[in-house]
Amino acid sequence: MPNEIPEVVILRLPLYARVLAQLESQGIDVVSSQMLGDLLQATPAQIRKDLSYFGRFGKQGRGYNVHYLQQELRQILGLNRTWIMALVGVGQLGSAILSYGGFQRQGFQIVAAFDADPARTGTTVGGLVIQSVAELQETVRTRGIEIGIVAVPAAHGQEVVDALVACGIKGILNYAPFQVRVPRNVWVRDIDPVVALQSMTYHLKGVYAPPRAMSVAVE
Amino acid sequence: MPNEIPEVVILRLPLYARVLAQLESQGIDVVSSQMLGDLLQATPAQIRKDLSYFGRFGKQGRGYNVHYLQQELRQILGLNRTWIMALVGVGQLGSAILSYGGFQRQGFQIVAAFDADPARTGTTVGGLVIQSVAELQETVRTRGIEIGIVAVPAAHGQEVVDALVACGIKGILNYAPFQVRVPRNVWVRDIDPVVALQSMTYHLKGVYAPPRAMSVAVE
Repeated sequence: MPNEIPEVVILRLPLYARVLAQLESQGIDVVSSQMLGDLLQATPAQIRKDLSYFGRFGKQGRGYNVHYLQQELRQILGLNRTWIMALVGVGQLGSAILSYGGFQRQGFQIVAAFDADPARTGTTVGGLVIQSVAELQETVRTRGIEIGIVAVPAAHGQEVVDALVACGIKGILNYAPFQVRVPRNVWVRDIDPVVALQSMTYHLKGVYAPPRAMSVAVE
Repeated sequence: MPNEIPEVVILRLPLYARVLAQLESQGIDVVSSQMLGDLLQATPAQIRKDLSYFGRFGKQGRGYNVHYLQQELRQILGLNRTWIMALVGVGQLGSAILSYGGFQRQGFQIVAAFDADPARTGTTVGGLVIQSVAELQETVRTRGIEIGIVAVPAAHGQEVVDALVACGIKGILNYAPFQVRVPRNVWVRDIDPVVALQSMTYHLKGVYAPPRAMSVAVE
């Protein structure tokens, strides 16, 4: 069954869970697909269809129980436990990642950090002693690391990804601006603000372009 | 015609352009859809279908001209010019964004930065003097700002988005972990590593879970 669910639906589920958590914190017990749609800028039909992949969560005409649906989505997503992560690349970006509290708060714990630069290894950043990449394999095994964060320069990205995959890592959060290649059983999420901007400009180029007639008039 | 192109295709185009730039830098003149597919971890049929939305770029059996296709994609995406951006929220994350050279290198220029904290306004970060948010509207107009970057805490995210939209901004790069609501003619891209992780764990939870039979055997 999991293979039948479109990836775009999977990508939306965390947004659903986040909105439900917000509603719960506001003391709201029941939510309609109409209201969820308003909050998520989607149609009620879209919401109902997305959720229908995973079972029947709402009663006809009664809406969804906020707490129950949130808990179900968190279980479906695998968020009802802590995930153990390691960071590779402790430059400016990597240091910011280690200092960011958001991962830990959401159950994603960075337990080790690695860098290729001997000047950095042995120093402490964000409470972690930076280790040499030579210790990667041993540390992944002993600490039970499940997700690797790649924050090295693009030129070294693929070799770091390959090293993580060779250690048995199946999930990679990639901040390096390059096209990752991994075996089929490894999952990658890219964080690249420039790529995000470069697809947004497709839509913006028409919006901001001055009307043709006006450009001609100016010439 | 633009409305007929699926958004997932638009989201892939910058990745195509990036791989083509890499091939060009390696002195490669012509590339097959097979090779592009290998580099992008997609099928040759997918590559041909995606590109066919925008015209006929390849000659049957001859492959694509790397330089020409890259230039065409950059024009389609609106990357053949500079985009003017402003940042709102100059905390730890906002400061890192101002110091990051990647935007400028790719034609995305941050020309102004705003913060609500009077202790921060007037100070210089990444070469920009932080302005009060009261100056937002005037600055957007005079500097021709087209894209707003939101790097404020989630609790203030929507009010900042609303302020940017009220200034006529049509594109928002949002780093705050909340569900943005905007009018239909405004485009948003979210950068949220936790949300990215939370959809990846859907796939990982089965991968790392110990096989049931083994768990039973251990008990």
